[in-house]
Amino acid sequence: MAIATYIKNSLVSSSMIRKMFEEGTRLKKQFGDDKVFDFSLGNPDVEPPPAFHRVFLKLAQEDAKGSHGYMPNAGYPYVREALAKKASVEHGVNIDGSCVVMAVGAAGGLNSVFKAILNQGDEVIVPTPYFMEYRSYVSNHGGILVETPTLPDFNLDVGAIREALSPKTAAVVINSPNNPTGRIYPQETIAELSALLTKHGEKGGRFPYLVADEPYREIAYKPVPPILSHYAESIVVSSYSKSLSLPGERIGYIAVGPQIHDREDVISALIYATRILGYVNAPALMQRIVAELCSARVDVAVYARRRDVFKQVLDDAGIEYAEPEGAFYLFCKAPGGDDVAFVEKLKQNLILGVPGASFAKPGWVRFAYCVDEKIIRASAEAFKKTQA
Amino acid sequence: MAIATYIKNSLVSSSMIRKMFEEGTRLKKQFGDDKVFDFSLGNPDVEPPPAFHRVFLKLAQEDAKGSHGYMPNAGYPYVREALAKKASVEHGVNIDGSCVVMAVGAAGGLNSVFKAILNQGDEVIVPTPYFMEYRSYVSNHGGILVETPTLPDFNLDVGAIREALSPKTAAVVINSPNNPTGRIYPQETIAELSALLTKHGEKGGRFPYLVADEPYREIAYKPVPPILSHYAESIVVSSYSKSLSLPGERIGYIAVGPQIHDREDVISALIYATRILGYVNAPALMQRIVAELCSARVDVAVYARRRDVFKQVLDDAGIEYAEPEGAFYLFCKAPGGDDVAFVEKLKQNLILGVPGASFAKPGWVRFAYCVDEKIIRASAEAFKKTQA
Repeated sequence: MAIATYIKNSLVSSSMIRKMFEEGTRLKKQFGDDKVFDFSLGNPDVEPPPAFHRVFLKLAQEDAKGSHGYMPNAGYPYVREALAKKASVEHGVNIDGSCVVMAVGAAGGLNSVFKAILNQGDEVIVPTPYFMEYRSYVSNHGGILVETPTLPDFNLDVGAIREALSPKTAAVVINSPNNPTGRIYPQETIAELSALLTKHGEKGGRFPYLVADEPYREIAYKPVPPILSHYAESIVVSSYSKSLSLPGERIGYIAVGPQIHDREDVISALIYATRILGYVNAPALMQRIVAELCSARVDVAVYARRRDVFKQVLDDAGIEYAEPEGAFYLFCKAPGGDDVAFVEKLKQNLILGVPGASFAKPGWVRFAYCVDEKIIRASAEAFKKTQA
Repeated sequence: MAIATYIKNSLVSSSMIRKMFEEGTRLKKQFGDDKVFDFSLGNPDVEPPPAFHRVFLKLAQEDAKGSHGYMPNAGYPYVREALAKKASVEHGVNIDGSCVVMAVGAAGGLNSVFKAILNQGDEVIVPTPYFMEYRSYVSNHGGILVETPTLPDFNLDVGAIREALSPKTAAVVINSPNNPTGRIYPQETIAELSALLTKHGEKGGRFPYLVADEPYREIAYKPVPPILSHYAESIVVSSYSKSLSLPGERIGYIAVGPQIHDREDVISALIYATRILGYVNAPALMQRIVAELCSARVDVAVYARRRDVFKQVLDDAGIEYAEPEGAFYLFCKAPGGDDVAFVEKLKQNLILGVPGASFAKPGWVRFAYCVDEKIIRASAEAFKKTQA
């Protein structure tokens, strides 16, 4: 008759964000949906591509016998094969279906990874700013999240990661294209990080896993360098939440490199973790749909145009931002340096954004441009007013 | 570069079951699929009802804008309302949508519940035999599973639960209709258990939650008594894996009683746990499908007929079993008392079952009758041979 203390405390601290959303809803009721510039949510509004609809309808018409039943916990073998081909191309390796485990979205995949690899007290290094749920995903499974800074342009600070490495380091998490900065880590930085982790492993015997959370790989305005080909102990986690705009359907996957130590054990552990965490398997229908859509994606040009429009709006208002190379976020410097105060001021002008404190980066504010271009354009005057 | 010790050990101990499945596959290859009597898996083979296909096709044809996007973590409000109505009827209470949280199957729901309520070292009482994954679901979130015996007919032994109760007891889990025994706990037993838990709470200040895992409620050959109306601190977890034969689609829900202490906190905790465990939300499309199918179910008469045929087969072979009142399992006494040896002997006659040891009940064997009636009939001679 009492909830867990950890959850109780978390509810208190997460109530600030909830309050913000509630106030957004209140503002929309008061002033009308079209009068509020809501850039707070990363919920893709671009519809899935026509190919998705075609395959969805085809599978519904067939509704094949047994197609909603259990399959192996790792997913349908032919789906794993299809995704292995896709991952092989993206990561410059040659893996087969045995290296892929289907997941309940990238969030489910990350939890399976941490459950599979973390012992109590193990450390997981995460560069700031980062998607705050990582903190729970790590602590859910007994791990300790260790934050490291990034460079002023939000590229990885490999030196800072070097200093944070310890015998307890089980993994380093990177997220490129990044939420909230939109940064894509360049090839040479990935190479530098790989060299560091290799050296650390050779010296101490424990090679940290490099966990690449990359749901935004296909929402990018320049090439995203491969990970699996760079470092043997890499684990890639991805989803179709952004590339096919299916976040509500919870379909993702985990792919491991062909040279990963104890490969069979690692894959068995990922499958076992997926089972005992109660995911059991990724949703059956969506597995079958994405297997037929490996090269489909939403129209990234739509996001690129919005980004350009939004940049112009911010330039005109004199607000500084990190140059976004991928994903659909603009990460802006809060004028005056107080992100919470700036978010308040924005709200008075009916603009909703998320304070950087929610990404472990106070002093900044995140705007998501998963909204119609017209709304971005229409927000120009309101942004200028916040600067007046 | 090393998997978690807990997972490594679990993989070793779970390898026996895996070996069994692998041998089943080998036998089928060697002798032909139709020559092996595979009663090992609880994977419903009865197709979803025609109403499912109708709604599935309708939603695929519409493929409404935004229908695959994020919704609140608890699920679509109208879906929660629909399931609250269903749960209200089944449990003799009057709850609205705010008491329902959509889940990634019952397994996902149980993990959300334990994450929401367990502090490190809390105890969860589970009567034997039980679905062994409960052990992981509890330990995933820092809890300790405490086994209690049931009565010889597998009805709840409320006296044994009384003895197991302690100040650390956070919850008692019941599963009725039961996997593996098929037992449905009668109304008076639920009342007796409720009285015990109430008394325990009044004495010590901590009322244990009664967690009812009931994916088989609608696969029953006699009425299944309500839970929520009996005990205020009840949490029901269910799914459509069996009632609509959709186990691969991972669609379930959690419902709490209207009188539960700190109701708002409990529901917030369940939603928060669902979010941070990486489920995020139950799959969108399936939520929308089941909301329109609240009164639909698979044809239970098919399972009832198979049960009768299987009972006759076992009677003819002189094998004792617990009378199944629901679910689709027959739990049989291993002649001689050694379940593993009996399973071996069965295998020599091309019959596959699961040793009771896998349900914390050695000396017994579980047969799942999610297979064609013809296969059950055809197994009669093989069963007789094991007894020769």
